[in-house]
Amino acid sequence: MNIHDLIRELHEPSTSKIVLLVADGLGGLPIEPGGKTELESARTPSLDACVREGVCGLSIPVLHGITPGSGPGHLALFGYDPLQYRIGRGILEALGIHFQVGPRDVAARGNFCTVDDTGVITDRRAGRPTTERCVAMCRKLQQIRIPGTEIFVEPVREHRFVVVFRADNLGDAVNDTDPQQTGHKPLEAKGNDDHSRATAQVASRFIAEAARVLKSDFPTNMVTLRGFARYPKIETMQDVYGLRPVAIAIYPMYKGLARLVGMEVADAGATLSDQVETLRRLWDKYDFFFLHYKYTDSTGEDGNFAAKVEMIERLDAEVPKIRALNPDVLVVTGDHSTPSKLRSHSWHPVPTLLWSKSCRSDPVTEFGESYCLRGGLGQFHAMYLLPMALANAGRLGKYGA
Amino acid sequence: MNIHDLIRELHEPSTSKIVLLVADGLGGLPIEPGGKTELESARTPSLDACVREGVCGLSIPVLHGITPGSGPGHLALFGYDPLQYRIGRGILEALGIHFQVGPRDVAARGNFCTVDDTGVITDRRAGRPTTERCVAMCRKLQQIRIPGTEIFVEPVREHRFVVVFRADNLGDAVNDTDPQQTGHKPLEAKGNDDHSRATAQVASRFIAEAARVLKSDFPTNMVTLRGFARYPKIETMQDVYGLRPVAIAIYPMYKGLARLVGMEVADAGATLSDQVETLRRLWDKYDFFFLHYKYTDSTGEDGNFAAKVEMIERLDAEVPKIRALNPDVLVVTGDHSTPSKLRSHSWHPVPTLLWSKSCRSDPVTEFGESYCLRGGLGQFHAMYLLPMALANAGRLGKYGA
Repeated sequence: MNIHDLIRELHEPSTSKIVLLVADGLGGLPIEPGGKTELESARTPSLDACVREGVCGLSIPVLHGITPGSGPGHLALFGYDPLQYRIGRGILEALGIHFQVGPRDVAARGNFCTVDDTGVITDRRAGRPTTERCVAMCRKLQQIRIPGTEIFVEPVREHRFVVVFRADNLGDAVNDTDPQQTGHKPLEAKGNDDHSRATAQVASRFIAEAARVLKSDFPTNMVTLRGFARYPKIETMQDVYGLRPVAIAIYPMYKGLARLVGMEVADAGATLSDQVETLRRLWDKYDFFFLHYKYTDSTGEDGNFAAKVEMIERLDAEVPKIRALNPDVLVVTGDHSTPSKLRSHSWHPVPTLLWSKSCRSDPVTEFGESYCLRGGLGQFHAMYLLPMALANAGRLGKYGA
Repeated sequence: MNIHDLIRELHEPSTSKIVLLVADGLGGLPIEPGGKTELESARTPSLDACVREGVCGLSIPVLHGITPGSGPGHLALFGYDPLQYRIGRGILEALGIHFQVGPRDVAARGNFCTVDDTGVITDRRAGRPTTERCVAMCRKLQQIRIPGTEIFVEPVREHRFVVVFRADNLGDAVNDTDPQQTGHKPLEAKGNDDHSRATAQVASRFIAEAARVLKSDFPTNMVTLRGFARYPKIETMQDVYGLRPVAIAIYPMYKGLARLVGMEVADAGATLSDQVETLRRLWDKYDFFFLHYKYTDSTGEDGNFAAKVEMIERLDAEVPKIRALNPDVLVVTGDHSTPSKLRSHSWHPVPTLLWSKSCRSDPVTEFGESYCLRGGLGQFHAMYLLPMALANAGRLGKYGA
């Protein structure tokens, strides 16, 4: 049985409130075996207080051994099987610049590149132009018109941009035109089915026009497109979970991911303090609040153990303000691990705490990877966290008589 | 989503090396509740050293409560869902005598039996003949010719032999001809589909010819066939996991199982010491090494607790030589449990350790069933062990952006 069908059948009206606080890349590793992780090293009195009354565990974002990107990691936390719901690169890039993708859109990631007189690529990134130049070149591309299709071109940074084709019945089974190496001409875009052939045709015309308008703009005199992706069809959290959800995030990609599953997106401010203030302001209007905290991930990616510890401590300092709002359920977790030792996302399970008045608390007294191993939630797939939160919020009825 | 499709998408080239050391039937039971298991009783300083730096857990070969045979147990460790990939009895018997089954083969297990003048079976095992007689009788059966089909008959031991039919388009949906009780004639072989009917026809002719050539060889004067099985179509580990794998095993069945998933099979010698020397010799040629150690299982099957303890200690003594090769990932586990208390395979989860530089170590300091309960891998399905090993070896890219 499809779990969404099950939950749709079981969810019940309630005035209870759930807060999902996602510390991006929360999980870590000790520098040396037997040492403490970033989270274990951090002084986290407020989180520890939640841990003592709550229940802990380790969440597996996708599958054992699989390192998730931000898309799959968040989809799982929103209660969607990340192996069933896939978000293409083009859509994620569009979300990342706050472009509001819609159901008729196919988005692709674009690269400015350099070609010689014969059309052969000599630099796949056009010598990494400045973002200013990227903006200027995108302005040129925005003049391209193709009858029957709306085209949006938006700069990302350096050589990167996003192009969105909007029309009825566009497919996304289209190959990348980037040949992945210099010394070759860009590949022709081809579609795998009728709808995708329509997209490929539009893309080919766009690329031909781009070559024309960029002709004198060496080294940014050509483009390649990759990661063609349609707006994914995803049931909303309202429909599946019966929630009125809102995202309180700062970075565009996480707002975009939240919008994909039907969350409203709040104007969150610029700091975690602003986000918590936004939470307070919106408290009466919603019943599910997704707070996204980026800096546990970015410090991990930088390989800066001490900075990640500090970012966790700053997060901890905001927890009492969240508790003061008296949520029925508070979940604190990450979308994946980002150990500063590895300087990247990783496959390691993610420390997770769930606090509610009806949880079965466990012997864990501090928040940390090795402590969570002894937690009452055990090791579980992240996509089950939201059903558990709903249950703890009194929002799920009995299955079967 | 199919996990093999996922892994195929994610694996990345690497020069890292993975050693999978399988102590057959490793898991055990204490003689008395509250006592120690074989593994917990053994002095294992080298394995314990791996445990302290590595991560432990308990693997479930198939499903909770399911006792696996050697086939499913090993398939799971090779990263194949043992419920999806099934290896028929005929193929396993053929592998067990080192017969190299191929894609056009249907193999069946044969029994010599005794029939009376009316063709009714009076002894299903022909009085358990000596293996010498089995060999002699098989020699007679090897003279049988059926146009269009190659036939191979190989002795196993006592009343048991293997027959392999080789031709294009042979199916294996054929019933056993053994009626499972005396007082009945052998059943007629019938096929469930066109290809299997072709096999049934060949098998019936073979049985009729066997009755003729064995006519004067009472009590081994007839044969029954069962477990008709085709060579299973299994994607190779090269294809799915991007590995160059080699099996360093002594017993034919394990070499055969390894060959089924595309491993090369080394000339391993006769002892564990020889196997480790083979490992050293082949170190530069492969990147995945499956070492199979039989004696933890055979002593368990014998019900000899002390001998199993001793075999574990002998295994431990070889571990430093493996560590000295500096593998990136070392996994030590079993394909199932074989508690000497039960004298048989069992369903109990299998103690497992994974050592790598990027694993998240846990508080476990000794190798053993009850210690592994507190391990960072938790309890997991054995088929996820290989993806975890790949992740730890830096061989899996990120899923999704």
